[in-house]
Order: sequence, then C-alpha cells, then structure tokens
Amino acid sequence: MRKVILDLAVTLDGFIEGPNGEIDWCIMDDDMNLDDFISGIDTIFYGRVSYDAWGNFQPEANASPMEQMIWQGVHSKNKVVFSSQNRQDEKATFISTDIANKVVEIKEQEGKDIWLYGGASLIRTFINLGLIDQYRVSVHPIALGSGKPLFDNLKERIRLNLIKTNVFKSGVVQLIYEPEATPSLTDFL
Amino acid sequence: MRKVILDLAVTLDGFIEGPNGEIDWCIMDDDMNLDDFISGIDTIFYGRVSYDAWGNFQPEANASPMEQMIWQGVHSKNKVVFSSQNRQDEKATFISTDIANKVVEIKEQEGKDIWLYGGASLIRTFINLGLIDQYRVSVHPIALGSGKPLFDNLKERIRLNLIKTNVFKSGVVQLIYEPEATPSLTDFL
Repeated sequence: MRKVILDLAVTLDGFIEGPNGEIDWCIMDDDMNLDDFISGIDTIFYGRVSYDAWGNFQPEANASPMEQMIWQGVHSKNKVVFSSQNRQDEKATFISTDIANKVVEIKEQEGKDIWLYGGASLIRTFINLGLIDQYRVSVHPIALGSGKPLFDNLKERIRLNLIKTNVFKSGVVQLIYEPEATPSLTDFL
Repeated sequence: MRKVILDLAVTLDGFIEGPNGEIDWCIMDDDMNLDDFISGIDTIFYGRVSYDAWGNFQPEANASPMEQMIWQGVHSKNKVVFSSQNRQDEKATFISTDIANKVVEIKEQEGKDIWLYGGASLIRTFINLGLIDQYRVSVHPIALGSGKPLFDNLKERIRLNLIKTNVFKSGVVQLIYEPEATPSLTDFL
C-alpha cells in the first residue's frame, strides 16, 4: 500500500517556524536529494490554507535551477486539499468530510507514495487518526528558543521506530521513522 | 582548554520532560557508552536544585550493575554548584557570583572535560554567557506533544556546527554540535 509521508524541517529545539513565522534558518542543500523525494511521490495532501499559499506557487524567474525543478516536480503531482469549505478547483481534488475513509481509499489505489504537506492542523488530524506511515524530520543545526512547535495538541504520544538517518554536509540530520505498531483488535483474536 | 559539555536527552519534538515532569520515555541502552562519557570528564556543574536532587543520589540496591557503575563514576567527580545561596558543603564547591570569570578560570585549569548537568536555568545562563563548548543532544524516538522545552528564554538563536552523530540500537540518535564561532573583538583588529 502507498505510504503517507510527513516531511518536515525542524530546529534542534523542535520548532518548525520562529515566533514570527521565520523559516530563514531552513537549509536546502544539493546533497539532500529533494528531487529523489519528489520523484518517489505522485500525490500531495494539503490543508486549505497551505494549498492557497503554496499549492500553485511559482518561484521567481531568477530562482536557482534546483528550486525551479523542484517546483515543477511539485506541480506535476495529483493534489488533494482537505478543507471544511466545499470548494472546487480544476487543479486539485477537495475533500471536506469522512477524511479517514477517503485517505484509506486513496492509499489503496495503485501509485507512488503520498506527501503530507501540511499545515499544522491537517498534520495533527492525520496523526490523531493514525494515517501517517512515515515521518521524515530534518533536524537543522540551530536552536531558536521559541516558535511554532513541531506537533501540538496530540491526543497521545507518538512512539516511533527509527528506520534511517541521513547526514548532510550542512549539518542537517534527517531522521526517518515509522510509527510503532499500535495494538489493533485483530491482535487479540 | 577543557570543554564544557551539555548532554541532554530530548524527544523528537524538543521536550526534555513531559508536561508533568515525565522522563519515562528516556532510554538508557548499553551501546550508548555512558561510561565512556563519564570517564572523559572530571568535573560536573550543577544548579542548586539539581544538586540537591541528584548531586548525592544513591541508586537502589537492586539497580542494574551499569546504573550502579555510572553513579559511582558520577560521585567520583569534582562537583561545582552554582547557587544564589551562599552555601557550604564538603562534597562540592559553591559559586554564587561572577559566574563567567569563575567558569573560565576552571576551564583553564589542567584536567578533563566538564559536564554541565543542569537544570534549565543554569543551562540558560551558560548559553547566554557563551560558556558551552559542546552540545550533545540525544533525540529519542518519541513525540510528546507538550512538555518542558529543551531551551527557553534564549537571548538569541544558537547556531551550531554538527560534529558527529551516533545512532543507537534503540533508535536514539545522538547529535553532537559545537556552537558556531561568533565574531569577537579580535576578528576586527
């Protein structure tokens, strides 16, 4: 079955943004192989706010070739937007109800993995529904002291199994986890 | 010169304790070579509260041999307690004023490295005075969603250089950093 992958950059002290939304500390290095990640997925899940901000973003003409290529890659994917508003858009599929079943339906379709893009409230919903199959957290070599936390308002702890670590030349360390299996009804039959 | 080393366990989402002080998620594995770390230092820096709680702690008689050995190692070190109270104790040296100069004086003495044990307010003081030479942060494979943050009330961001990573069988990843050199007066002469 296709995996839902959460891929995030985080500071050493667990923030995804500074107190005023700063992401200037976020490093994009060419040894990170972002294009490999992009080519391994064919679908992106957005919350409505993230989709409006980034779903159809075009980099400036003078952006680096790598950045141009990544955005081109992003825009070639199937986009699914989770929104309480009942919206239509020819460039995306909108889902406003029955998230868990609809996500499972998409995961069961043939295809590549799925990137859970965010934002925070969609990520929380996915965590609390147990819908994330892989966490990729890139720990950046900086501490901010305050900011927007990686996860908040979790219903319960997330226990993880470390699958792989990647160390980049910038000092970013990518930690890849899968959630620890939680006991399901079938375990007791 | 001897290094002041901060060594901490942290959750993936940047907490050193749960919301109610929980540290039950903290893993001590035999491949972590804690005894190597202990044998590389000869001095421990405590805040007063941490010293009162742990400075003379004795493990229970049925604790594991590894735990017994680690505590025996800890108690063989020189202990320095930073306290606003003017206290005396034959087992430790107390420092209540002029922290920066006194720490530099200790660092310039012959000897092994120094473990900055904590707690949070002493760590913050050391960060803000630029007195930490090495950060060793052991990222545990769990997210709590809330708790006591790794660092708070920083005067400014801490920019770090990654020196080394150690991956343990439990899924704990130890990230070792040195602070990025900040420009000093001599850089401009």
